[in-house]
Amino acid sequence: MPHTPVQHRYAEDLSYCYGCGKNNDQGLHIKTHWNGEEGVGKFTPRPEHIALPGFVYGGMLASLVDCHGVATAAAASCTEDGLLPRFVTASLHVDFLRPTPLGPELELVARVTERRGRKVVVEVEISALGEVRVRGQVVAAPMPQTMNRD
Amino acid sequence: MPHTPVQHRYAEDLSYCYGCGKNNDQGLHIKTHWNGEEGVGKFTPRPEHIALPGFVYGGMLASLVDCHGVATAAAASCTEDGLLPRFVTASLHVDFLRPTPLGPELELVARVTERRGRKVVVEVEISALGEVRVRGQVVAAPMPQTMNRD
Repeated sequence: MPHTPVQHRYAEDLSYCYGCGKNNDQGLHIKTHWNGEEGVGKFTPRPEHIALPGFVYGGMLASLVDCHGVATAAAASCTEDGLLPRFVTASLHVDFLRPTPLGPELELVARVTERRGRKVVVEVEISALGEVRVRGQVVAAPMPQTMNRD
Repeated sequence: MPHTPVQHRYAEDLSYCYGCGKNNDQGLHIKTHWNGEEGVGKFTPRPEHIALPGFVYGGMLASLVDCHGVATAAAASCTEDGLLPRFVTASLHVDFLRPTPLGPELELVARVTERRGRKVVVEVEISALGEVRVRGQVVAAPMPQTMNRD
């Protein structure tokens, strides 16, 4: 697994995301590693990320799909000179296939399945204890200039 | 707006949800009020719930769609003797129509649009500064007995 997470290559001033920004002290610090074909990662929710007792909160799982999917879109769209484009989430879909146990480390895998103009569609799977629990899809779009406050 | 949030009528042992459980000290405490036709609510994200600077994190917005949608499904399915069924999220869809500014209070509105057997489909809208920013859909399913650890 490559050492530097995709999210650590985002510009400093765009690295405050609650889900994955390295500069957000109170954030989740979701990390995606790009292996050349897929975005992969691991994440262990904290005890407070509970839904019903024993299971992981759906909004936490949606956050994993979101940040891991967007980072995978960026890594897969990196230019030859190493420029990493910054994407935002246009839409997010999450199917909770079966309950996700709270406690075990979660495994994340994501891959680009489609390009729609400048938009990138990414499928994300979250597994626990060797079984896929969540299947998600992110439609990532290049960051609009109107969202850049520089 | 009725005084008691739907989430405060969940059973004590099922009230630890990170998104909306009143017994989760570190949770978000998302609250839904049922007006007889719609689930309505207000929520102000904290400064750390940032995405790109100035805007609300998508995973936070997905969490609002999730907990507000599920609570609306429950309230709309309340039996005549006042028994509130407990639902879980089967799937979640979120369209980020336009960026959601971080700072202003968000307004949540949800309504049941369809029943598929025992499943309930709920549409959720999130507005800020009088404009709809997010449109979401939750498919809520009755809590499986396998998720009850009593």
